[in-house]
Amino acid sequence: MTGTTDADSPVPRTPPPIIAVDAMGGDNAPREIVRGAVMAVRDLGLRVLLVGRRTEIAAMLAEEGALRDIPVVHAEDDIAMHEGALASWRRPRSSAAVACRLIRRGDAHALVSAGSTGGIVATSTVRLRTQPGVLRPALAVTLPTEPVPTIMVDAGANADAKPEMLVQFAHLGCAYSQTAFGVERPRVGVLNIGSEPGKGNKLVRRASEMLAALAEGSETMDFRGNIEGHDLFRGKVDVVVTDGHSGNVALKTIEGTAAFTLNAVKEALTSSTMAKAGAMLQRGALRKLRERFDSETYGGAALLGLNGTVVIAHGDSHPEGVAHACQLAHDLSGGRIGEQIRRRVPHRSPHWLHRRTEDR
Amino acid sequence: MTGTTDADSPVPRTPPPIIAVDAMGGDNAPREIVRGAVMAVRDLGLRVLLVGRRTEIAAMLAEEGALRDIPVVHAEDDIAMHEGALASWRRPRSSAAVACRLIRRGDAHALVSAGSTGGIVATSTVRLRTQPGVLRPALAVTLPTEPVPTIMVDAGANADAKPEMLVQFAHLGCAYSQTAFGVERPRVGVLNIGSEPGKGNKLVRRASEMLAALAEGSETMDFRGNIEGHDLFRGKVDVVVTDGHSGNVALKTIEGTAAFTLNAVKEALTSSTMAKAGAMLQRGALRKLRERFDSETYGGAALLGLNGTVVIAHGDSHPEGVAHACQLAHDLSGGRIGEQIRRRVPHRSPHWLHRRTEDR
Repeated sequence: MTGTTDADSPVPRTPPPIIAVDAMGGDNAPREIVRGAVMAVRDLGLRVLLVGRRTEIAAMLAEEGALRDIPVVHAEDDIAMHEGALASWRRPRSSAAVACRLIRRGDAHALVSAGSTGGIVATSTVRLRTQPGVLRPALAVTLPTEPVPTIMVDAGANADAKPEMLVQFAHLGCAYSQTAFGVERPRVGVLNIGSEPGKGNKLVRRASEMLAALAEGSETMDFRGNIEGHDLFRGKVDVVVTDGHSGNVALKTIEGTAAFTLNAVKEALTSSTMAKAGAMLQRGALRKLRERFDSETYGGAALLGLNGTVVIAHGDSHPEGVAHACQLAHDLSGGRIGEQIRRRVPHRSPHWLHRRTEDR
Repeated sequence: MTGTTDADSPVPRTPPPIIAVDAMGGDNAPREIVRGAVMAVRDLGLRVLLVGRRTEIAAMLAEEGALRDIPVVHAEDDIAMHEGALASWRRPRSSAAVACRLIRRGDAHALVSAGSTGGIVATSTVRLRTQPGVLRPALAVTLPTEPVPTIMVDAGANADAKPEMLVQFAHLGCAYSQTAFGVERPRVGVLNIGSEPGKGNKLVRRASEMLAALAEGSETMDFRGNIEGHDLFRGKVDVVVTDGHSGNVALKTIEGTAAFTLNAVKEALTSSTMAKAGAMLQRGALRKLRERFDSETYGGAALLGLNGTVVIAHGDSHPEGVAHACQLAHDLSGGRIGEQIRRRVPHRSPHWLHRRTEDR
């Protein structure tokens, strides 16, 4: 990585980043993951390598006729889908741990895994470490708003958060919005239970105060105060800040509600003969809609704030989801999100945030 | 109210409860509220009275030809939609406050209001007071699961909750489930970010421990551990326990996601000529679905744990929503949910819960 600024060049002139794909993570690993990697190389033109049990993966690559296109790095162990944070210590030779080692050495720039979220968050946090000044890495997901997606952060990495962390999540989300969608001065909102200032629990009230003070006159952040759950899809802000508990509840509630609604639509559309006739005409349109929800919302959650890009794909990812996650990892790593975060997050101590608020 | 048990008779033999409807609360007050009250009396056969500015309301009742069917109790003041908790002190003569006075005197049994949630929660908490042993009243909403609706509590009354409160929310929700849906031993789940025990933030981890200890061998509660956001519509539990912050985020996220999905469906269905032809056949089915979501999920939130039944209807309620809220108030009050809560919540001190957990 060179040290040139990239504010005006989202597509860098340096060689494209290398994506290390964890072949062993996910409900459909390794076969569907390998297929996704092949798709990322052939259809999207990305640079990818696979990490996992070499012979098994090589055989699958051979089946796809892609043995020469994708290097394989051997890892003898893997993290099971039910394993959580402890796996990071218990499995130093897991495919995810080996991929992190490649990133630390500079042999790869990003990790894509469909493995257990808890396991991948812990493994990559321990092995890649947080960037200078970053208190905790946070999971960022995108919601399918128009014209640009809204980023929600944290979507589940930190169940117990502090106000200082929420302030940093805003920085991390802004860096994502600028890198992936070119938004120079992202609008930031705090997920709350009412829109007026002073609403909500202690955590969000304090975080809102700090963000309001920080963003006053800022050229890199436009703080818009509180937003509510029903605003998530209205594109009112570019970055939604929340603790990992509420964020994860919101994300999974979106997933559950969308599935429930689409099923109810399907039932409603086939409830009478007339409607049934109509439904036949439209099956394609509904399928497209479901795909849009699946891929845009759940294609991949980015773990932000580490020394290296990490994208966690949905556990039951199919090849399309894996390829989509690779594209996201490519965009974030190639757009040098790490530099964006370094510029936004103060390096030394987060306590200057307090001082700044109180000095005013 | 007589002292007979009502476990086997959800429809009591005592006279049906009187519902005091806050005519001045809500975006469409007073006209749509008055119409809703008329609908509750004519179509649902409920006993209703209206509280608000007498001459204005009487004129509207006269227009509907219902002047003799619904008594009007005068209240000179009202709580504006933007007013929050402070309104409970600031407006002792608001329609909501007058309705609470009727309940305390025994002249009414339940309050229905489409006013500002913060204002109504505060007013009714101050004026009706909590039942013996209840730490905080909590908002309960129902989700349209089959065969019986799932109750989520707290949906926003307590932004900062403690583990002891979450335990009580479980009791309140169980009382609701038994009273409204006849579930004798409701299944209870804690809304969390993972399904395994030990997941989540400190609050839910501690509450889960306490609930597990409490429910062991219980004949009135079946504790099922953690549930996640995508399980809300799967009918896995009868009662979902959560703090008011996460609960409100979940509720409003459901609202936002359902609206977004239904709009996207509409667009998808009209995106091609073929699909457009199909959509014409189905407009009715989609409208029915939207109504189901609106009325079942947002018809009314019950504020549980006070000396009197309180149902808060959606702020933009139309007559159907008001009538639906009156029906809910009738069912809860007539089924004597207060007695159910008294039986489930320990009267003295909540600290026995700690002792019980530690004694084990």
